[in-house]
Amino acid sequence: MTAKKLNPAEQQVRDLCAEARVAARTLATLPTARLDGMLDEIAAQLEKEAPAIFAANAKDIAVAEESGLAKAMVDRLRITEKSLAAMVAGVRQVRALPQPLGQKITEWTRPNGIAISKIRVPIGVIAIIFESRPNVTIDAAVLCLKTGNATVLRGGKEAIHSNRALIAALQKCASLPRGAVQLIGDTDRALVPFLCKQSDLIDLIIPRGGHSLIETVVAESRIPVIKHAHGVCSVFVHAQADFGMAEKVILNAKVQRPGVCNAIETLLIDRAIADKFVPQIAAALTKAGVEIRGDETVRKLAKGDNIHAATEADWTTEYLDLILAVRVVDGLDGALEHLAANSSHHSDSIITEDATVAERYLNEVDSATVYWNASTRFTDGGEFGFGAEIGISTDKLHARGPMGLDELTSYKYVIRGNGQVRA
Amino acid sequence: MTAKKLNPAEQQVRDLCAEARVAARTLATLPTARLDGMLDEIAAQLEKEAPAIFAANAKDIAVAEESGLAKAMVDRLRITEKSLAAMVAGVRQVRALPQPLGQKITEWTRPNGIAISKIRVPIGVIAIIFESRPNVTIDAAVLCLKTGNATVLRGGKEAIHSNRALIAALQKCASLPRGAVQLIGDTDRALVPFLCKQSDLIDLIIPRGGHSLIETVVAESRIPVIKHAHGVCSVFVHAQADFGMAEKVILNAKVQRPGVCNAIETLLIDRAIADKFVPQIAAALTKAGVEIRGDETVRKLAKGDNIHAATEADWTTEYLDLILAVRVVDGLDGALEHLAANSSHHSDSIITEDATVAERYLNEVDSATVYWNASTRFTDGGEFGFGAEIGISTDKLHARGPMGLDELTSYKYVIRGNGQVRA
Repeated sequence: MTAKKLNPAEQQVRDLCAEARVAARTLATLPTARLDGMLDEIAAQLEKEAPAIFAANAKDIAVAEESGLAKAMVDRLRITEKSLAAMVAGVRQVRALPQPLGQKITEWTRPNGIAISKIRVPIGVIAIIFESRPNVTIDAAVLCLKTGNATVLRGGKEAIHSNRALIAALQKCASLPRGAVQLIGDTDRALVPFLCKQSDLIDLIIPRGGHSLIETVVAESRIPVIKHAHGVCSVFVHAQADFGMAEKVILNAKVQRPGVCNAIETLLIDRAIADKFVPQIAAALTKAGVEIRGDETVRKLAKGDNIHAATEADWTTEYLDLILAVRVVDGLDGALEHLAANSSHHSDSIITEDATVAERYLNEVDSATVYWNASTRFTDGGEFGFGAEIGISTDKLHARGPMGLDELTSYKYVIRGNGQVRA
Repeated sequence: MTAKKLNPAEQQVRDLCAEARVAARTLATLPTARLDGMLDEIAAQLEKEAPAIFAANAKDIAVAEESGLAKAMVDRLRITEKSLAAMVAGVRQVRALPQPLGQKITEWTRPNGIAISKIRVPIGVIAIIFESRPNVTIDAAVLCLKTGNATVLRGGKEAIHSNRALIAALQKCASLPRGAVQLIGDTDRALVPFLCKQSDLIDLIIPRGGHSLIETVVAESRIPVIKHAHGVCSVFVHAQADFGMAEKVILNAKVQRPGVCNAIETLLIDRAIADKFVPQIAAALTKAGVEIRGDETVRKLAKGDNIHAATEADWTTEYLDLILAVRVVDGLDGALEHLAANSSHHSDSIITEDATVAERYLNEVDSATVYWNASTRFTDGGEFGFGAEIGISTDKLHARGPMGLDELTSYKYVIRGNGQVRA
């Protein structure tokens, strides 16, 4: 709530949020068939509006190219026939997912006869602040609608024309309550802190993006936040590891898609096998075009143009690139020490054939997802089988790790009695 | 994390939190038997330290009486033989509760063979900021210890000597890791905003107290907060209500213990029965010493020295006293409208014999606990059968309503494979 006079841009944000609050009340009472009907209409409408969406996207691409944005970034912005079809398929996939709303999480009856049920309900109004990729816009709106939540979306400046066209298509759907999906069309950065203070109108903020966006939201918000922040993920190769498996997992986790949060940034190697394994993995990484930032031992055991000295900062850096920090540690305890001090608590994996060591690692490493003999790249709603994800939470409250439909719900207790009073 | 130079009081808080962070790492790896052993030792130690606790409490009582604190408030501060015994019994009760840690919430295997388990784990370091009552100190510490969490406690100035003595007793227990239960002994208010910014050392803040404390924490915190704020609870008497049941429930919910958050502050009466029911309930409330703030219709139908005009503010006021706002509404829809606009989303009850009306109410009222034909006073961890509660969350994320042991845990995904990589 804000007592001071609002400027016109702030007033517009406040009005959008207030409409979303009203829509959320309606959405919360609708049966699944009605919610699913909205998703059907959205899929059809996106197909119908394809020409307008491509035209709007072309404007974003032109601006991006003119401003000299890196080609990879321009590609992320681009909506093609294929990517639009994927967006539409995504909507239909979410529609087909089982509905968590109304689910009885648990129920019991007390000795006095009152019957208590714990029931899944929508959260209410969810604000999602994200950067660049326009497919996030539709994904986020549709996942929230499926679970009966209204959304207030705030996308990046680079994709503003595309986002406006996508949301305009959604808002043409007659089955959507007015205000169910709102886009903040003004990309002024000053509106983010303002949005974060509308605690009477918004129930949850999900920021997805770079460090500075997350920092701003965390510092300014008076609304619960579920952060989708960075991942400094790791693989630890234990003395009893199968070297072939270790190499395969490390290459997959580092090289297959280096620009994502579940790719590894750190490799820990047990001192007991360093002599043998460091040269082997350094050669494999070098061949794959990976730059190595190694500690002293690593640099003694492997040499090359791509092998540099690691600094303290390297143990906590998310490169999102073909760079890997490599450290030799004293067995399991050394790995646990390193992770306790440096892990971003996202995804960490141990490679070992020793079940006792593995179970201690799985128990003691405090990360959203801990792995034994598998790649960290599986930390993903799709790979988990959730069918979709709104992102990957790096928080420990409410949702941790891949966040699917269930995590977009709250619950309430429904109590049925026959006149019970408290003694 | 704080870059600027800290003053000595801030440095002390930061050091306490850092010790708690180290302790949390140890606690997270301990088996249930070790955690329960701590609770046994705490119970015994509190009994042993009774003389020191009473002496410290006498100091708080003397200061409170000297400063002219209301007698009810002084009584809340007092630790008697009986209340200390109750505290000790409470510790033993928590010890006897089933352990949620390690529980497999769900598990499944993916087509590629990776096995995913979702396992309950501690949250980490929990800061609890509370006011006056010293029994909260032990309750909170013990519930957090049972679930493997370290705590940083910040109690009110009025109970500072008692809190110091209670925590000193805890900290003498040899079985507790150093730093597992920390008390901020400095009651300077400026330390609350500082505490709320130690996001690298604290995982969750629970403020329990008045409006101004909650506001400060929400505004200043960079750490997830679960609010335990106020309750403006209500009963709605529908046209098809059993009047006898309605009267019994209303009196229980208003009069039995008016100073708590699950007591009602608002009574909504269906216009269809106002002529009959308003005079009946007004007479009963008057007899019970309740002041009525009524709308125009109520004031037409019932007269008395204790019946005053309600203002708009009355619909959202938590009196915590023998005062009740009474409004006549147009059936179920009128009640739903009133609650959507004014409810604090804590606990609301409908009294009716009509199951269809009741189910619509239970579905559409967005409160942590919704009741059909029962008193709102059951919104309580003990009454729910949780065995204990850390409080009643008025938030919708992570924990809603009575917050027991399960809600003091997070989870992690444990994945076991045999070399799987992502395609």
